[in-house]
Amino acid sequence: MKQIDGGVTAAKGFKAASTAAGIKYKDRKDMAMIYSEVPCKAAGTFTTNIVKAAPVKWDKVIVENSPCAQAVVVNAGIANACTGEEGLRYCMETAEAAADSLSIPVSSVLVASTGVIGKQLPMDRIVAGVKAMVPALDGSEESGTAAAIAIMTTDTVKKEVAVQFETGGKTITMGGMCKGSGMIHPDMCTMLSFVTTDAAISKELLQEALREDIKDTYNMISVDGDTSTNDTVLLLANGMAGNEEIRTKNEDYEAFCMALNFINEVLAKKMAGDGEGCTALFEVKIVGAETKEQAVTLSKSVITSSLTKAAIFGHDANWGRILCAMGYSGAVFDPEKVDLYFESAAGKLKIIENGVALSYSEEEATRILSEPEVTATADIKLGEATATAWGCDLTFDYVKINADYRS
Amino acid sequence: MKQIDGGVTAAKGFKAASTAAGIKYKDRKDMAMIYSEVPCKAAGTFTTNIVKAAPVKWDKVIVENSPCAQAVVVNAGIANACTGEEGLRYCMETAEAAADSLSIPVSSVLVASTGVIGKQLPMDRIVAGVKAMVPALDGSEESGTAAAIAIMTTDTVKKEVAVQFETGGKTITMGGMCKGSGMIHPDMCTMLSFVTTDAAISKELLQEALREDIKDTYNMISVDGDTSTNDTVLLLANGMAGNEEIRTKNEDYEAFCMALNFINEVLAKKMAGDGEGCTALFEVKIVGAETKEQAVTLSKSVITSSLTKAAIFGHDANWGRILCAMGYSGAVFDPEKVDLYFESAAGKLKIIENGVALSYSEEEATRILSEPEVTATADIKLGEATATAWGCDLTFDYVKINADYRS
Repeated sequence: MKQIDGGVTAAKGFKAASTAAGIKYKDRKDMAMIYSEVPCKAAGTFTTNIVKAAPVKWDKVIVENSPCAQAVVVNAGIANACTGEEGLRYCMETAEAAADSLSIPVSSVLVASTGVIGKQLPMDRIVAGVKAMVPALDGSEESGTAAAIAIMTTDTVKKEVAVQFETGGKTITMGGMCKGSGMIHPDMCTMLSFVTTDAAISKELLQEALREDIKDTYNMISVDGDTSTNDTVLLLANGMAGNEEIRTKNEDYEAFCMALNFINEVLAKKMAGDGEGCTALFEVKIVGAETKEQAVTLSKSVITSSLTKAAIFGHDANWGRILCAMGYSGAVFDPEKVDLYFESAAGKLKIIENGVALSYSEEEATRILSEPEVTATADIKLGEATATAWGCDLTFDYVKINADYRS
Repeated sequence: MKQIDGGVTAAKGFKAASTAAGIKYKDRKDMAMIYSEVPCKAAGTFTTNIVKAAPVKWDKVIVENSPCAQAVVVNAGIANACTGEEGLRYCMETAEAAADSLSIPVSSVLVASTGVIGKQLPMDRIVAGVKAMVPALDGSEESGTAAAIAIMTTDTVKKEVAVQFETGGKTITMGGMCKGSGMIHPDMCTMLSFVTTDAAISKELLQEALREDIKDTYNMISVDGDTSTNDTVLLLANGMAGNEEIRTKNEDYEAFCMALNFINEVLAKKMAGDGEGCTALFEVKIVGAETKEQAVTLSKSVITSSLTKAAIFGHDANWGRILCAMGYSGAVFDPEKVDLYFESAAGKLKIIENGVALSYSEEEATRILSEPEVTATADIKLGEATATAWGCDLTFDYVKINADYRS
């Protein structure tokens, strides 16, 4: 497997387009479309929030019931959440506009929205946007990148990645883009992620591969602990690589899962590292756990702790807050067995041994914590299980962004 | 029942003292002592964090095993958490110093600490502080107030309250003080609360009254979602009111519980309203729930939502974030039945009806949300149960305080 340039248009047969529809933002693109030359198998995972946005409801129906999908229409600026029956009708009207212009069935059009909750979509602009994008669909890398930029809200950088791997003499390509910066605590978050591949794979295995992989990727990140109403990951496979269809959990499936995990982990970390207002990606590893579940609970508790996040912003090795967050996580462990390390490009430092502070250099700790990517590793010495979660620091800008968001 | 001036020294026989022991802070008092002329029944509730501070471990032993308690020694600046066996030995040495000076058993001395995690107490200063406070013990209101000030850390205001009620011809007095501003998410938080009363009541009923009441008071507040290692509520009853001892759940017990609830709710709200960096007390009421548990889960999810808290700071009626936080809480409800109101001293406004926004005035909503105490009420129309939780807004100052705390 090797990483290549590009995103959603990297795989064979996938095209993208984007346009400035004027939904909320001025002077920038705010709609994107992904289209496959041939029908795709589609898998999807969606928010577990009881308050589900209309496009989540629409896509669940399509992914679960429709034999194929061929296009995705995305808008930024308005989330189409808490919009009642009117909002759901607008999903259908968006899909209809795309289906008409592309001459494909309505049931093969997925939709996704991100932005403010509770506002209705301006359907005249949405429809005009769809009509403007169809003739502009293009398989170039630039076109995929423009789409990744068009779906950004408070994101400060575009997020895309692509890989290639070989299976049965055929080269399979997989690429993805996502957006997400605030209201990020995916259980299955307002993150949207779109992954495209030209692999041939059965719908059942496509869905299973996605469902399993999000547990270690998107579901292991948090910016603010708020699980969105709109979280959506869509995975489209169009089979154009010409490989023999993957129908069993063989070596080809393993290679597919490995590529999917790479794509999803890179995209998930890009979201955590671009959390609203953040200055650092904060990685937390739990090792020596009895069970994976215990390791997941502990690592997620630390990345969501406001006090720990503020300490990371301050480059302060305030390890007590990390131990405290582990302690209230609900997972059982022995605090007096815990070793804790801080690590970054500037070095690695052991801070706690068996629950008690070592006489480390605060200066060195601060130097390590001043890097843009920092890791805390806690060894709880109970077993062999591990988990890694990704978050970010809590900053003045997070507060600024979210106190001002709607105005 | 009537509210009176004062705090921990309001009830008969209770005295307090405080001193500048120089533990962490300069130019201010940082130790306090509460003392009862006669031995007390003691009840206590403590943090559920697996990482328990040494004083929590000490007090649990005393409350559960000792026939009585007579003094409490409190320090601010160092939490004595994650300090291993050395930290626990320092609790005993503190209790021994107080017991010696007061000529009471070591097993009747409770201790409490709040401040930075992971540092050892400077025992020479602690012991000198205890020795300085004993001769200064005094039953005046001023003495109680000075103690309430001495235990503050990032708190910006002292927190005390007292009431009187009649039972069987006798006047019973109950008063309390607390501190808490950050790392506040009591499940049984670094909140410390001390309530004293001259009521005569059995130890079993004292503990039961406290255990039940914290569920509706301290455990319903959150500043930052971080459940501390040190949370402690101590309730001391010395019987000096001369009432017939309360041994059954009769009218007297009800009157006692009502007074206790008043004291605890006032102190809990004072902590939420003085959350680190906060500009507003944020109250969330859930009404029309099927069960109390459901109402508690929903209300706590909203007060801990970073996005909702930031919106309150911005005086922004961003109701979508409230519905979103209810949706990911884990409690089941129908989003399309929810009515939502904002209310404050500036008026009351219905924002959502049956899950969809009404065409309310954003200007009026902002006016309502600009008060120092604001309430959001969600009616989920499923039943009769209700719950109220208290939090605060998320501000630049919260980040500033917690990025800088140790330095």
